[in-house]
Amino acid sequence: MKVLVVCWHPEPQSFNGAMFRTACETLAAAGHDVVTSDLHAMGFDPVSGRHSFTTVKDAAYFKPQVEEMHATEQDGFSAEIEAEMRKIESCDLMIWQFPLWWFGLPAALKGWVDRVFAMGRLYGGGRIYETGTCRGKRALLSLTTGGPEEAYRKGAFNGDIAGILRPIQRGMLQFVGFDVLAPQIVYGPVRLTDEQRQQHLADYAARLRQIGNEAPIEVGIY
Amino acid sequence: MKVLVVCWHPEPQSFNGAMFRTACETLAAAGHDVVTSDLHAMGFDPVSGRHSFTTVKDAAYFKPQVEEMHATEQDGFSAEIEAEMRKIESCDLMIWQFPLWWFGLPAALKGWVDRVFAMGRLYGGGRIYETGTCRGKRALLSLTTGGPEEAYRKGAFNGDIAGILRPIQRGMLQFVGFDVLAPQIVYGPVRLTDEQRQQHLADYAARLRQIGNEAPIEVGIY
Repeated sequence: MKVLVVCWHPEPQSFNGAMFRTACETLAAAGHDVVTSDLHAMGFDPVSGRHSFTTVKDAAYFKPQVEEMHATEQDGFSAEIEAEMRKIESCDLMIWQFPLWWFGLPAALKGWVDRVFAMGRLYGGGRIYETGTCRGKRALLSLTTGGPEEAYRKGAFNGDIAGILRPIQRGMLQFVGFDVLAPQIVYGPVRLTDEQRQQHLADYAARLRQIGNEAPIEVGIY
Repeated sequence: MKVLVVCWHPEPQSFNGAMFRTACETLAAAGHDVVTSDLHAMGFDPVSGRHSFTTVKDAAYFKPQVEEMHATEQDGFSAEIEAEMRKIESCDLMIWQFPLWWFGLPAALKGWVDRVFAMGRLYGGGRIYETGTCRGKRALLSLTTGGPEEAYRKGAFNGDIAGILRPIQRGMLQFVGFDVLAPQIVYGPVRLTDEQRQQHLADYAARLRQIGNEAPIEVGIY
């Protein structure tokens, strides 16, 4: 299986970094073909602009989707964006490793989506959701939170984590056609002991060794 | 009233740009004190890192919240971040103008939150939600979508827009204490006529002239 692991955290020594390395090492050891996008190491620029393109459709007015459709026709994506799109197109499973910040993706990862999920190439022309270009592929969110698990339940003060993740799982992953696996969530790793963190890494590794057998979850619509 | 208007769109001539200018001009003409953060014009870097700080708490391990708490104590935020925090602290009303991208904030605006909503200064120590530092202030999301309104209803394929906006309204704005006003949403401005877009600008201006009288909405938890 070909696996793309995308990660962003500003500190490589963080628990997110450890989860990222665990995924890469475990999947490679299991014989999978692992490709990564370590956005912090890459210094990935998350802000959309003309630097995503070598072509120009309209020099007087910058509309990203118009430039994306033109670049799709003219092979006009920058090398950086083209490389990321090919990683997605080639993978069978995509994993995102990130800290949940302000109920969402950190900006670096959000901007990877903003720039790489390009109209014309990854969606559009009626190809969304069940007819998305990524149908048949699976995706997995692996994330950490600041707060404890009880703060992320239905009726708790942050509310149900499933609802918090829905814009990502529905609006990004399913939108382009991915089937979504159950999220891997480690709540408040900062308050865990080293032993507990090691156990989470071991549990994640055990799950990943069997990931080929997992069925997708229902994300649900609002 | 002091109003902070934050905007990000990569094309100043866009409808988002027009909504931004309409807000600034209308509020100023109504006698309010308007301050802006035009993140595209500012070239705001949305990626969290040590450049947010002049102080260092732990040079060997970068944890943003630890550095934020230290910078709060030591007056150690970079001039750029300090200026943005002061704009928030001084305002009575904060408006965000943005295109809804992938069911969320564009990366540039998300990263403004990631970097500026600093622990110790804007939240923390039990000061969240009803006890947040921004209690008594109001916030308004003004956004555009790509799809039509019927795609954003309960049971429609994108689902209820209120659920899509909940991580922003609950997890960012209410989290730090803002009361949230009803969002100003223009669906699919790209498919509207010039006349229809002008009408939306006029409707928004009319609303803003009375904004001091508006009561907050219930955002709800999941």
